[in-house]
Amino acid sequence: MAETGNLLSFRKSIRVVDATLRDGGLVNNFEFTDEFVKELYHTNVAAGVDFMEFGYKADKDIFAEDKFGKWKFCKEDDIFAVVGDNQTGMKIACMADEGRTNYRRDIGEKANSPVDMYRIATYITAIPSAIEMIEHCHKMGYQTACNIMAVSTATEKEISIALDMLGKSPVDGIYIVDSYGSFYPEEIRVLADKYLEYGEKYGKFIGIHAHNNQNLAFANSIECIARGVDYVDATVSSMGRGAGNCALELMLGFLKNPSYKLLPVLKFIEKEMLPLKEQGVVWGYDVQYMLTGMLNRHPRAAIDFTAKKRTDYAEFFTDLIDR
Amino acid sequence: MAETGNLLSFRKSIRVVDATLRDGGLVNNFEFTDEFVKELYHTNVAAGVDFMEFGYKADKDIFAEDKFGKWKFCKEDDIFAVVGDNQTGMKIACMADEGRTNYRRDIGEKANSPVDMYRIATYITAIPSAIEMIEHCHKMGYQTACNIMAVSTATEKEISIALDMLGKSPVDGIYIVDSYGSFYPEEIRVLADKYLEYGEKYGKFIGIHAHNNQNLAFANSIECIARGVDYVDATVSSMGRGAGNCALELMLGFLKNPSYKLLPVLKFIEKEMLPLKEQGVVWGYDVQYMLTGMLNRHPRAAIDFTAKKRTDYAEFFTDLIDR
Repeated sequence: MAETGNLLSFRKSIRVVDATLRDGGLVNNFEFTDEFVKELYHTNVAAGVDFMEFGYKADKDIFAEDKFGKWKFCKEDDIFAVVGDNQTGMKIACMADEGRTNYRRDIGEKANSPVDMYRIATYITAIPSAIEMIEHCHKMGYQTACNIMAVSTATEKEISIALDMLGKSPVDGIYIVDSYGSFYPEEIRVLADKYLEYGEKYGKFIGIHAHNNQNLAFANSIECIARGVDYVDATVSSMGRGAGNCALELMLGFLKNPSYKLLPVLKFIEKEMLPLKEQGVVWGYDVQYMLTGMLNRHPRAAIDFTAKKRTDYAEFFTDLIDR
Repeated sequence: MAETGNLLSFRKSIRVVDATLRDGGLVNNFEFTDEFVKELYHTNVAAGVDFMEFGYKADKDIFAEDKFGKWKFCKEDDIFAVVGDNQTGMKIACMADEGRTNYRRDIGEKANSPVDMYRIATYITAIPSAIEMIEHCHKMGYQTACNIMAVSTATEKEISIALDMLGKSPVDGIYIVDSYGSFYPEEIRVLADKYLEYGEKYGKFIGIHAHNNQNLAFANSIECIARGVDYVDATVSSMGRGAGNCALELMLGFLKNPSYKLLPVLKFIEKEMLPLKEQGVVWGYDVQYMLTGMLNRHPRAAIDFTAKKRTDYAEFFTDLIDR
C-alpha cells in the first residue's frame, strides 16, 4: 500500500493541482482577464501549488474561437505570455477532452510547449480513444493523466476493465472524477482503494477530482488522500462547474507540508475572486446542486435552474424525481 | 458495537434533531417571527424530524428579556402557542446552558411542560454542575442529553473523565460538539468511537453536533452516523452560529429511512429561509470561519469580521496566527 496520512506528518508524493481556470472556465466561458490569470499564476507559485491547469485544448473546428475565452483552447503562445519560460517549481497542465480535441494537429512536441502534463478527460465508454490520445501525448514527451469522468454512473465491472486498460497504457496517472458530486466519503474510500490497487499493480499515480454538490468535495478529497491518493485537484474559492470543486484554501490549510502557503491564496481571493463574484459570476454549493448530486444526475438541470435565478426548489425536486 | 450503516438499509435508532431555532437564534438574536416558527414546526412534523429544539432556557436575571427574541427563554406558554398539545410523533427539545440557567426555578415538572428533552450544554470544566442540572431535569421527568462543548480544546484524559462521570449520571445521551468546526473526519471517527465505547458501557445514546467552518459539518455528521452515533443535529439551510451547522436538507437526503421527507424542507427554504437571507441575516461557510476552524479557535473573531463586512482575509489570518 502507498504511504497514508497521519494528520501531523506529510507525504512528499502529494501533488496539488490548481484547476481554477479549467473547471472555473466552465462557469464564465473562460473569459478571465489577463491580469486575473497572471495573478493566479504568481499566487500558485507563491503558494507552492504543484501544477496549474490553464484550461482545455479544445478543437476550434468544433468550438468557434470567437465564442469562448482563450483558455478553452490553451494555445502555447497564450500560456507562454503568462509563464515565460516558467522558471519555477510549478508545472503547467492542460486538459484535452476525448472526442473534442484535434490532438494530432494541436498537441505537438513538448520541447516547443510550456505544458508539462496533459490530462485526458474521457467518459468510460471511450477509453480506447482516450488511450490513443495518451499514447500520442506520451510520444510527444508529456506527463499524462486520464480523468475518467462521471464514474458514479459506471458499473464496478466497467471500472475494473477501464483501470486495467489504462494500467497497460503509458499513462502516468488515473483520476477518480466525481463529476456529479454524488459520492459519500464511505463510497469514495472504496473507490479510492480500487483505483490504488490498479495504480500499485501498474505503477500509476491516482488522483481525485471532486465536486461540491453535497458539500463533500473537501471531505471526499481528504478521505482519498488518507487512503493513499496523491494528486488532488482544487480551485480557488471552489470555482468550478455548478457547485464547484474542492477549495484550494481548504486543501492548503489541511496539508501539513510546509512548502504550501495559504496567505497568497487568501490575498488572491480578496483581490480577484470577490470582484468576480460581484460581477455576477455564480457557482458554489446550493440546494439545486445538492438535489442533482443526491440523485446522481448531471448538474445541467441545476445549472439551468441557477441561470434562470429560480428558487422553487420543491418544484425542481419534483421534476427531477419524475424523470 | 452499535449497529452501523451500510448506505442502503437504515437504522431505526437514528434521531434527527432540528436545531434551527436554537443555533440559528444565535445568528438573529432569536428574533424569529411567529409565522416562521409555526411553519418550521409543521415542516419538521411533515419531514419526519424526530426532535425540534425551540431555543434556550436562559435565565432572565442574567439576560434581559427585552434584549432577545422569546426563544432565548423558551417559556412553556410560548411553546404551547406553537405546538398545542403536540399530537405528533415529533418531540420537543430545549437547551439549558450550565451557569446560565436558573433551572430550579425555570424547569418544572414535565407534566406541565411541552418539552420532552432538555439538552444541558456545558464546557468540560463544569461537568459536576451540569450533572446537577441533569439530575434535576431527570427528576422532573424529562429525557436529557449533555452537550460537551468545544471538545476540540479538551485533552483525551479530560474527555475520558467527563464521559465516565456522565456515564454514571442519569443522563440519557451525550453529544460530541465540534463548536469550533475544527475536526477532520478522521479525527471525529476516533472521537465517536471513544464516546460510543462509554455509551455502550453505560447505556447512553451518543449524538453529534457539527459546525461547518471547514465545510465538514455534513461529512463529519455522516461519519459519526456510520460509526454508530444515533442522534444527529441539523438546521435548515445550515442556519447557526458563524459557519452554521449540518444542513437538515443534506441529512434528510442522506438518510434512507422512508419516514424522512425532503420536500417539506425544500418548501420551507423557499418560503422562509430565502427571505431571512434577503433581510440580511448572515451565516454560513466563508473564508474567515475556515481560518478559525483550521486553527481550532472560537469563531468570535470571524463573527466580528463578518459583522463588519470585512473581506481582508489575509490581514485577518495574519492577526489570528500572531495571537
